[in-house]
Amino acid sequence: MKYSIFGESHGPAIGVVLEGVPSGFELDMEAVQKELDRRRPGKSTLSTARKETDVPKILSGVFQGRTTGTPLCAVIENEDQHSGDYEATKHLARPGHADWPAHVRYEGFNDYRGGGHFSGRLTAPLVFAGAVAKQILAQKGIEIGAHISSIYGINDAVAEDKDALLAVAEKEFPVLDDACGEEMRQAILEAKEERDSVGGSIECMVFGLPAGLGSPDFGLNVEGVFSQHLFAVPAVKAVGFGAGAAFSLMRGSEANDPLYVDDDGTVRAEQNNAGGVNGGITNGMPVVFEVTMRPTPSIARTQFTVDMEKMENAELELKGRHDPCVVHRAVPVIEAAAALAACDVLDIG
Amino acid sequence: MKYSIFGESHGPAIGVVLEGVPSGFELDMEAVQKELDRRRPGKSTLSTARKETDVPKILSGVFQGRTTGTPLCAVIENEDQHSGDYEATKHLARPGHADWPAHVRYEGFNDYRGGGHFSGRLTAPLVFAGAVAKQILAQKGIEIGAHISSIYGINDAVAEDKDALLAVAEKEFPVLDDACGEEMRQAILEAKEERDSVGGSIECMVFGLPAGLGSPDFGLNVEGVFSQHLFAVPAVKAVGFGAGAAFSLMRGSEANDPLYVDDDGTVRAEQNNAGGVNGGITNGMPVVFEVTMRPTPSIARTQFTVDMEKMENAELELKGRHDPCVVHRAVPVIEAAAALAACDVLDIG
Amino acid sequence: MKYSIFGESHGPAIGVVLEGVPSGFELDMEAVQKELDRRRPGKSTLSTARKETDVPKILSGVFQGRTTGTPLCAVIENEDQHSGDYEATKHLARPGHADWPAHVRYEGFNDYRGGGHFSGRLTAPLVFAGAVAKQILAQKGIEIGAHISSIYGINDAVAEDKDALLAVAEKEFPVLDDACGEEMRQAILEAKEERDSVGGSIECMVFGLPAGLGSPDFGLNVEGVFSQHLFAVPAVKAVGFGAGAAFSLMRGSEANDPLYVDDDGTVRAEQNNAGGVNGGITNGMPVVFEVTMRPTPSIARTQFTVDMEKMENAELELKGRHDPCVVHRAVPVIEAAAALAACDVLDIG
Amino acid sequence: MKYSIFGESHGPAIGVVLEGVPSGFELDMEAVQKELDRRRPGKSTLSTARKETDVPKILSGVFQGRTTGTPLCAVIENEDQHSGDYEATKHLARPGHADWPAHVRYEGFNDYRGGGHFSGRLTAPLVFAGAVAKQILAQKGIEIGAHISSIYGINDAVAEDKDALLAVAEKEFPVLDDACGEEMRQAILEAKEERDSVGGSIECMVFGLPAGLGSPDFGLNVEGVFSQHLFAVPAVKAVGFGAGAAFSLMRGSEANDPLYVDDDGTVRAEQNNAGGVNGGITNGMPVVFEVTMRPTPSIARTQFTVDMEKMENAELELKGRHDPCVVHRAVPVIEAAAALAACDVLDIG
Repeated sequence: MKYSIFGESHGPAIGVVLEGVPSGFELDMEAVQKELDRRRPGKSTLSTARKETDVPKILSGVFQGRTTGTPLCAVIENEDQHSGDYEATKHLARPGHADWPAHVRYEGFNDYRGGGHFSGRLTAPLVFAGAVAKQILAQKGIEIGAHISSIYGINDAVAEDKDALLAVAEKEFPVLDDACGEEMRQAILEAKEERDSVGGSIECMVFGLPAGLGSPDFGLNVEGVFSQHLFAVPAVKAVGFGAGAAFSLMRGSEANDPLYVDDDGTVRAEQNNAGGVNGGITNGMPVVFEVTMRPTPSIARTQFTVDMEKMENAELELKGRHDPCVVHRAVPVIEAAAALAACDVLDIG
Repeated sequence: MKYSIFGESHGPAIGVVLEGVPSGFELDMEAVQKELDRRRPGKSTLSTARKETDVPKILSGVFQGRTTGTPLCAVIENEDQHSGDYEATKHLARPGHADWPAHVRYEGFNDYRGGGHFSGRLTAPLVFAGAVAKQILAQKGIEIGAHISSIYGINDAVAEDKDALLAVAEKEFPVLDDACGEEMRQAILEAKEERDSVGGSIECMVFGLPAGLGSPDFGLNVEGVFSQHLFAVPAVKAVGFGAGAAFSLMRGSEANDPLYVDDDGTVRAEQNNAGGVNGGITNGMPVVFEVTMRPTPSIARTQFTVDMEKMENAELELKGRHDPCVVHRAVPVIEAAAALAACDVLDIG
Repeated sequence: MKYSIFGESHGPAIGVVLEGVPSGFELDMEAVQKELDRRRPGKSTLSTARKETDVPKILSGVFQGRTTGTPLCAVIENEDQHSGDYEATKHLARPGHADWPAHVRYEGFNDYRGGGHFSGRLTAPLVFAGAVAKQILAQKGIEIGAHISSIYGINDAVAEDKDALLAVAEKEFPVLDDACGEEMRQAILEAKEERDSVGGSIECMVFGLPAGLGSPDFGLNVEGVFSQHLFAVPAVKAVGFGAGAAFSLMRGSEANDPLYVDDDGTVRAEQNNAGGVNGGITNGMPVVFEVTMRPTPSIARTQFTVDMEKMENAELELKGRHDPCVVHRAVPVIEAAAALAACDVLDIG
Repeated sequence: MKYSIFGESHGPAIGVVLEGVPSGFELDMEAVQKELDRRRPGKSTLSTARKETDVPKILSGVFQGRTTGTPLCAVIENEDQHSGDYEATKHLARPGHADWPAHVRYEGFNDYRGGGHFSGRLTAPLVFAGAVAKQILAQKGIEIGAHISSIYGINDAVAEDKDALLAVAEKEFPVLDDACGEEMRQAILEAKEERDSVGGSIECMVFGLPAGLGSPDFGLNVEGVFSQHLFAVPAVKAVGFGAGAAFSLMRGSEANDPLYVDDDGTVRAEQNNAGGVNGGITNGMPVVFEVTMRPTPSIARTQFTVDMEKMENAELELKGRHDPCVVHRAVPVIEAAAALAACDVLDIG
């Protein structure tokens, strides 16, 4: 499934075209909405106050409740824009944001209101696409779970149980251990109070992918396919599979996952440092990865930057409504990206 | 430039076809050979004893010493294969290697000798391709440097100076601080003595990419493009840009890179936590990333695994010549992948 | 520029997402509408009676009247559907249409109303995309003209003059010689009266493409790029460049276009049998091609076919509103496809 | 299966890398050689006197006689180059050839000897790739046949019988009706005597493709996929499916192929004007197309052209060994392109 996301934060609508959706699939729109609601802003003090209903309207590709197999377009209207917030500072590049590189790339013509096409708001259509992908994968016995693995140095419990991980999707604050979650919330609120923001990381697992998917070659290896989907999510700055960066501290004798034939005749590994992938090919164990998300660049503190029109140094005091942390809202987004990557790896579409 | 790498570790030859090479480029074959020699095995006790001259033969795409602009094929003959080493254990999946997933993926028909197409030997044509890319980039003022940032927990000095980083390419052991390098060597030799191996990480910087390259969209964002090239390198398991995984420990006020107008009228950042990329677009600062490489899976210890023919548990004692660490040999490989990614981002070819 | 067209003939809306549009381009929406109006149905007895205003609504990618450079989505609402026309015969595969292959491809779940995603109506968003492309090309001095070269064996005059060809866009019936056009109209009306339809061909020229675009290699050669765009237009069944199929009647001494250096120092050809392309690369002469369009498959006569549900033979009497000929309405569609192909060849986007 | 062809007519070797070959396939190298021999020059007075054995050497992707599933590289050495033939006229653009556009495209650095990368010689690796594809298709019951449908206005018999068409591959001169073939040979020899060349056309059929392959959308429709492969063959200037250009002379009532349910329960068409494709999707009938090939541009007559170095008008008298017609040698090339297209449409690789 190929997806094309379009829209700007303060334009009339955002949306996505999905190509390669299998035909005859009965889309569960309630489940789709649930995924969108997990990401939706305006639900708590931990997020931006922008209120959006985020109800997608399907323009094509669904007929009599089932997918037709031809391109599926879904549109989500923007409702609660405060575009005025951005006028006064529109020439000041917000540090950490794409304002400056976008100004160069688009020669100053990009929509600056709310970050335009770079807005985290554009992850709503991604979640829509991922929700469709997830339902298709579920039919094949493939499930995806994720949790916040850390925020500002506070770690969640280690994911050891599939059901516990999948149950995180039902929680308001998506962690395995709610006590850890409470600490994380405090860290976010403290940062907010200090007009600052915090970063964190998300661990995600894809269960049920059979062994033998992918190839070692460029463009086809599983880690490359997943990482391309993951780095397309705003704020993701690092991706590691299995033991990830910790491999640099290991010896081969620890790192190697011993194999055995399980009672059901399946080859399994005794541990999953490889994160389900060797040589670019799935090995039948869950595909496990962690992404790191930078702290929200929008902070209410005075920052030093440049005026892109006058090309001179400037100070910036941001107005507008911002998330002191995007990690908790990003959990369904990472799952969505993983679902789309899994569809690629399975050659669906 | 699109590249297609072919070959198996113990086949007649390995090689690469490069499409989209600019025409009229005078290829410095001595510089190409130098890059290949940086990666070449058999030079010290830190690497496999396999001896290969790794001299590429160009079959097409170069005429009268200059590139024609049509596809360039280079072939490197395999010379020092000990294929017999692999016969006895060919049905035993080597843990940490791609043997098991490849067995499933290719239905048992992949060339098992020396890892076949999965061998680290296939990075030689990648280094060839990268060497061509590097020379083309150099003409545009773009330079690439890398060093081992850590091996088995021993860190190199922090890269602060461009010239110092570029000078690492001249060193036998590619670190900034030779004292750190000496410790790393010891760690490798200790691991070797204990019939084990070690992992590590490589930091790489691309200097000179202008601001405004890339796009936020899927398939076009700079981090996605680089990561797809990087994960195609065997043993790479994590990729982080700029502060990378450390963003999870940060607040926005630390993470954001303040911008200023430099004396030459250029917009620069006071620090480079973003690693030269915001919103998927280059910001004019060096593109900086770190990759983590798993310890070589080939170790001489007894390992538990499966016999893929009998589908039963087995013990494996590996014969053959192996690298106790691949990180030092991988430095030019990572530079090569970065060079090819930079060409993509610049839309060369 | 990459385009993704979505929608069904009787769904809520049809549209297109355009990626890679240059930023800062001032879109002339009046000119866009004019192109759409050339294609629009319901204007004469020569076309279907379906009435559509075909006014596009832009959801993204345009800000303050200029393109942002980020994905541009335009939506056209469907207004005058008579979906009931299709209920009675929905299980009968219309000969010449995609009904049967689509039934197999989409397992019976495609939207059958008015041909669904296969409808000629889907060429409206293609014309929109082409109109954007044309305006971008015009800035680079590239112009596109087309005329009906034949309908049911009646030929238009030979295109010899660029201005005359470009002026065809202003005509209600797009031919060079109106007398020929009058004969063609008669042929269409006769076919209509006999509850039949007619086929024809369209000749198109792209003026101003510089020499040296394209490559001989797969996926990059100019004829391949154009043909892929052209065969994506419903009803196109043949494409020929320059002398096209007539090359089979020629000797090399006639076929070869002698070259000369023109007064302005430019290399030109004395004739243009090559249609502006040699070896897959533009030679600086206009790119000229002809496409053949099959007669509209929807005819009001009794036809023999199959009932796809009962899997038995059946007779079909089509209801609904149909075009006795689509060639005259297809002229702007072919120009649109040519414009998008020209953008590809120029590597715009 | 993705293929990358490399090489120049007078370089050391030409070849191809095939990616996505299914694993475990036992390659019949005798059958591959037979295909190459059908195309091989130097066999009769109808072709160039250049003698090449055209024996491919496989460098990778085959192990113990079977495909590994990893990239397959085959190389064919160039043996009988007369590069001196091209020195005297190297600055004179040969009319009808790619010399002038290639000179612009590659800034004068392309290999001019024997046409370099543009040489018809590069169709040898294409035939190799097609021969592999054909064998894979044959396992799925898919067969491909082709014949010269016309040379210089002399038509072959109409293809009505699958076996007769497939038997053409065994003939020295690939026509259905040898009497027509004899006339064609005479036309070629006459042209040769008059130091000229002739064009012609090839009809090709792909038998056994199931209904439901392909999509109407850009890049996926069957006619677009085939045409992209076909226009990558040098000298192809027109492609038509089914009735092709003749559709312009038809009414819908003739053009539409009535459908019926055959005795075996399969839906078939009473005639195959659609050439096996409706709406971009296969309909289960043979995929039928005709390509037109321009006369060989290399003729021994004096031609007017330009000196690309001096940028002035010039006269050209070609030396070298040339084909007075390439159509008969191109039959296996067109079959090869069709085989690769069929693999794409079937999503093999």
